[in-house]
Amino acid sequence: MVLLAEKRVLRHWQVLAYICRILIYNAAGWVAIPSCNHSVKDQAMYAHSVATEMAKEAIKFAIRNEIKIVTAESCTAGLVSATLTEVAGASAVLDRGFVTYSNEAKVEMLGVDAGLIDKLGAVSEEVARAMADGALEKSNADIAIAVTGIAGPDGGTPEKPVGLVHFALSRKGKEQRHERRIFSAMDRANVRAATVERALVMLIESVTNRGFVSID
Amino acid sequence: MVLLAEKRVLRHWQVLAYICRILIYNAAGWVAIPSCNHSVKDQAMYAHSVATEMAKEAIKFAIRNEIKIVTAESCTAGLVSATLTEVAGASAVLDRGFVTYSNEAKVEMLGVDAGLIDKLGAVSEEVARAMADGALEKSNADIAIAVTGIAGPDGGTPEKPVGLVHFALSRKGKEQRHERRIFSAMDRANVRAATVERALVMLIESVTNRGFVSID
Repeated sequence: MVLLAEKRVLRHWQVLAYICRILIYNAAGWVAIPSCNHSVKDQAMYAHSVATEMAKEAIKFAIRNEIKIVTAESCTAGLVSATLTEVAGASAVLDRGFVTYSNEAKVEMLGVDAGLIDKLGAVSEEVARAMADGALEKSNADIAIAVTGIAGPDGGTPEKPVGLVHFALSRKGKEQRHERRIFSAMDRANVRAATVERALVMLIESVTNRGFVSID
Repeated sequence: MVLLAEKRVLRHWQVLAYICRILIYNAAGWVAIPSCNHSVKDQAMYAHSVATEMAKEAIKFAIRNEIKIVTAESCTAGLVSATLTEVAGASAVLDRGFVTYSNEAKVEMLGVDAGLIDKLGAVSEEVARAMADGALEKSNADIAIAVTGIAGPDGGTPEKPVGLVHFALSRKGKEQRHERRIFSAMDRANVRAATVERALVMLIESVTNRGFVSID
């Protein structure tokens, strides 16, 4: 785990709280499971409850800082927006969500260039960035989070394996962020759950104005 | 439980299989939980795994009958489309989804008449019907399922209590369907989970051309 303070020096307790929170999320999500003899699918469900806690954090700070959120989802197909709205009061900050599962949907709903998809594929940095920008443009929100990836079990290639996900976060007046992750050795449900968690971390970092923490 | 065969007579084994499936869904979703001492929230997660099984059925028949699906969600905010796409291969039939959480989103994304929302409220039969029609119009799908409701814990009134959900299903060339349900004595997560299940039942009935089974 590497913490990079790019813009300003964090107070020590903030860093400590952040690390503890991530550890607690992971502990709650994965360690507690074997005692109950749950299946792999149940792990994804537990991870989902972890994501709910993260969603609470995202919504709390979005409300506090009056930041409206929009989602643009391909591989998760609504799981990010659904997780955010598990939090009562989310309607104050969640404007809408675009579930752009097909390429046509990405083009028609978000204005993604069809040529970009043909050239680079729907799962690419450029398409993720275009999805986030499109979502911001076609909504009343201040922040857009976009995800596009290969959840599996099929559809992977050596260049783009199952578990590859591109994230993009656009925020009015700020530089766009992009992340590329490969959630390897996971089944479909867990790739999607991990994608939701990472999207929520990016959202939390943005709505709390902690846009400098990168965890690798 | 009332089974109404309106259009044609079901074979007995079909009715039996349907009832058994519903019973198994409920058993898996609710009865198995106390042995593990899970919380109410976990119940919603187990219900979610039940919904996944239903989604498999919906996707299987949609693929078999070459029927494309679109979702329009308010209170579930993407949970129906997310559940459908837990099934590998869903991309063959799920075109896109509209998460229209705010009233503006319903108007701008689905073309719902703003006057209708002002007059009757976002949680009403008319708005649910307009959402389904709008989703069908603004997509390449054959079936649109729309949900709008009050998940709670706030926002309920004597006329429109927490747990009230309006469902509408539009299918090209067929009569539109509407259902009104009150999922009472449930928390937010369970109202949403119950909404997803009911939406999936409506979808299953339509993609299997069993548009005559009503369970009360």
